[in-house]
Amino acid sequence: MKHLLGLEGMSAAGLNRLFDAAEKFAGVGVGDVPKRDDLKGKVVVNLFYEPSTRTRMSFGLAARRLGADVLDFSPSGSSTSKGETFIDTAKNIEAMGIDMVVVRHSSPGAPHVLAKHLAPHVRVVNAGDGAHEHPTQALLDIFTIRKKLGRVQGLTVGLVGDIAHSRVARSNIHALTALGAKVIVCGPTTLVPSEVAQFGVEIADKLDDVLPRCDVLNLLRVQFERQRSGLFPSIREYRLLFGVDGDRMKKAKQNVLLLAPGPINRGVEITPEVADGPNSAILDQVTNGLAVRMAVLSELSKAA
Amino acid sequence: MKHLLGLEGMSAAGLNRLFDAAEKFAGVGVGDVPKRDDLKGKVVVNLFYEPSTRTRMSFGLAARRLGADVLDFSPSGSSTSKGETFIDTAKNIEAMGIDMVVVRHSSPGAPHVLAKHLAPHVRVVNAGDGAHEHPTQALLDIFTIRKKLGRVQGLTVGLVGDIAHSRVARSNIHALTALGAKVIVCGPTTLVPSEVAQFGVEIADKLDDVLPRCDVLNLLRVQFERQRSGLFPSIREYRLLFGVDGDRMKKAKQNVLLLAPGPINRGVEITPEVADGPNSAILDQVTNGLAVRMAVLSELSKAA
Amino acid sequence: MKHLLGLEGMSAAGLNRLFDAAEKFAGVGVGDVPKRDDLKGKVVVNLFYEPSTRTRMSFGLAARRLGADVLDFSPSGSSTSKGETFIDTAKNIEAMGIDMVVVRHSSPGAPHVLAKHLAPHVRVVNAGDGAHEHPTQALLDIFTIRKKLGRVQGLTVGLVGDIAHSRVARSNIHALTALGAKVIVCGPTTLVPSEVAQFGVEIADKLDDVLPRCDVLNLLRVQFERQRSGLFPSIREYRLLFGVDGDRMKKAKQNVLLLAPGPINRGVEITPEVADGPNSAILDQVTNGLAVRMAVLSELSKAA
Repeated sequence: MKHLLGLEGMSAAGLNRLFDAAEKFAGVGVGDVPKRDDLKGKVVVNLFYEPSTRTRMSFGLAARRLGADVLDFSPSGSSTSKGETFIDTAKNIEAMGIDMVVVRHSSPGAPHVLAKHLAPHVRVVNAGDGAHEHPTQALLDIFTIRKKLGRVQGLTVGLVGDIAHSRVARSNIHALTALGAKVIVCGPTTLVPSEVAQFGVEIADKLDDVLPRCDVLNLLRVQFERQRSGLFPSIREYRLLFGVDGDRMKKAKQNVLLLAPGPINRGVEITPEVADGPNSAILDQVTNGLAVRMAVLSELSKAA
Repeated sequence: MKHLLGLEGMSAAGLNRLFDAAEKFAGVGVGDVPKRDDLKGKVVVNLFYEPSTRTRMSFGLAARRLGADVLDFSPSGSSTSKGETFIDTAKNIEAMGIDMVVVRHSSPGAPHVLAKHLAPHVRVVNAGDGAHEHPTQALLDIFTIRKKLGRVQGLTVGLVGDIAHSRVARSNIHALTALGAKVIVCGPTTLVPSEVAQFGVEIADKLDDVLPRCDVLNLLRVQFERQRSGLFPSIREYRLLFGVDGDRMKKAKQNVLLLAPGPINRGVEITPEVADGPNSAILDQVTNGLAVRMAVLSELSKAA
Repeated sequence: MKHLLGLEGMSAAGLNRLFDAAEKFAGVGVGDVPKRDDLKGKVVVNLFYEPSTRTRMSFGLAARRLGADVLDFSPSGSSTSKGETFIDTAKNIEAMGIDMVVVRHSSPGAPHVLAKHLAPHVRVVNAGDGAHEHPTQALLDIFTIRKKLGRVQGLTVGLVGDIAHSRVARSNIHALTALGAKVIVCGPTTLVPSEVAQFGVEIADKLDDVLPRCDVLNLLRVQFERQRSGLFPSIREYRLLFGVDGDRMKKAKQNVLLLAPGPINRGVEITPEVADGPNSAILDQVTNGLAVRMAVLSELSKAA
């Protein structure tokens, strides 16, 4: 694997190899566990064109714990304001002798463009490209499922919320399907495109109908700030139909695993009692994200 | 000491232990003096919700000179713009395996909230919470007094300016009182709350009346940008009554020590001739801030 | 050399000593070439008051590859918004025990002010001061000429574009002249001040007239965002008269070397076919910038 651009087309074997590697990286650099040298002497650039706390920090920490130097590039205060193109910016960064670019961009396919234009020794990791893919988020979601439930194959996973605009949903669908999980996408009809059926998933518009069958619920963030006013659903309607609260949890399997890629809107897609309750693995996801990203960076650095 | 949330209630013994430690850290990592390993393998996060140059850099340098990795988190360009709560942001950072959080926030008590909600192994340092406390600033003020004048007990220290809105004043009052100094707070009546008398300080509204008795003057910054227009005092009135210039210095003790937490408004609370004159220890404070912050970070890391 | 404030007055011997040092630093910290220890234990502060991608990153990487710790200071989110003066900010940074300041500022002479006011052990590097000088950019431009063409003396170098507002032009003129190159400045009459003739350069307002004589063309960025509307030239006019495209290249020497300090405006001062063509050394400049900046930082750190 030279780049991690997306999970579409990745095999179960490839995914499991990453998960096995991630097991080994869990806890590296935390507490008394020393850092490693996998990326010693390498320079990783976080090239983020969209705001991010956890993803940028998570990649930055993961790279540092493998011994890399990390540089953050954010477009404000940069050449972008002078009209430089995306590729010129990237090629300039490359010309400084960097080894890996972790890129987030609002345009689907931006990481693929980088992978095509940058020198062959430079590795590219997609940290979210528009509504297209966010592969490391899906990897950490599924790694968390694997650690918590012991397997992925045969499980029923509900992806709930704004499927249409969600790169997290798309990456999860590809990888979960490849690993033999059953995927149900569930959300307001305005936010679930019918094309998604081509990926072999079940579509539902009533959470209460499918809730009892789910082993895992991944509660996607609804980006109300991107919705035009007056459109269905309102926050109130969304909460009523798709928000997971204590009452709704009674209809779910007792050991249902709750995931949310965050940042969560407390009281909208999930209530505090559920977010902080025993079924929630929301913070485990963050911890696992470090291990998964170390695994990805390490694997890419070993590719010929 | 597990956290440094404020100086209220800290004993003279506890304060002097920190100052003794700070003596040992002075100059570490500067010139040919090598860094230390006190925080080797630790990750310190600067979680600053308010702008800061010197405090953020000072903590960052102090942590690096003890061997820590430092990550800066600033809320712009972050999940905060997506509506994530303060605690969720902090718990997410914690879940990445960090060891210490240095936090600045506009809400009094924000660091206490973190200390309560984060895991027991995470250390919290208050780098300024609203108008409440700014403990390391007061520690470096008083450490500077101790180094310059040889003692704190028995000295008369004038805190001049906006006492009402000053976390620096509050932290200084607690620690100076505990150490046996006499504290006079002095400022426009609109900016000196009468409740401050409960802390055992003298209140004055004419600097010229108390100036001759002070061994130390700590000139707090007046945040004119926070004042509503038309209120007393104007900048001109403040300068006239409380600004320290060459003429006013003639009324002070010859060896009076001048402190200012900065950034200073040259020509308002202090004129350039005085700020850059022989009585000023303004830049010593900055240098001492490094030693004090190294002492705090090191002490916290050793706590069980 | 204690500071690098500008190239005016620097001798050919001084310039060549830096270029010779830069040869040695080429590729340090890239691929399998390990970092060096020239700045081990030193702290370098990037004090940038104007936006920058490549220069800030380039200095940051160069310093890290020599073993230094690097801190970025940018004025937004800092004491500057509280009204602190430039010198007070710098003296505060100095008081924290830093060794080098790389400064970019909109005021010509700002780095000289720092060099005068900071302690004698602190080194100052000018990373661009208004329209005055940008010495490391000119050094990397000329280092690239030297590497590509084997010499500088006797070459004819055309500096094309906005000479009036260009610190890059000014630094290039000083150094190229010192090294025995012939310099032709060429641009719209509104953007070429007649005073520039005092530096012993030829002035031309038609690129096509001088193009056949040039061994090197350095295409400066026209900062259209700084021009008042309605002024000559418009982007269209500029492109027509000074933009280098495939047709214009036919009038140039076959091996003419094309430089551009970037960020480039594709389709304005240079078309993509030329920017990405065989005569372009635009990305070599970026790579060489690392070596040149390592040489500068290393030389300064060795000065008594």
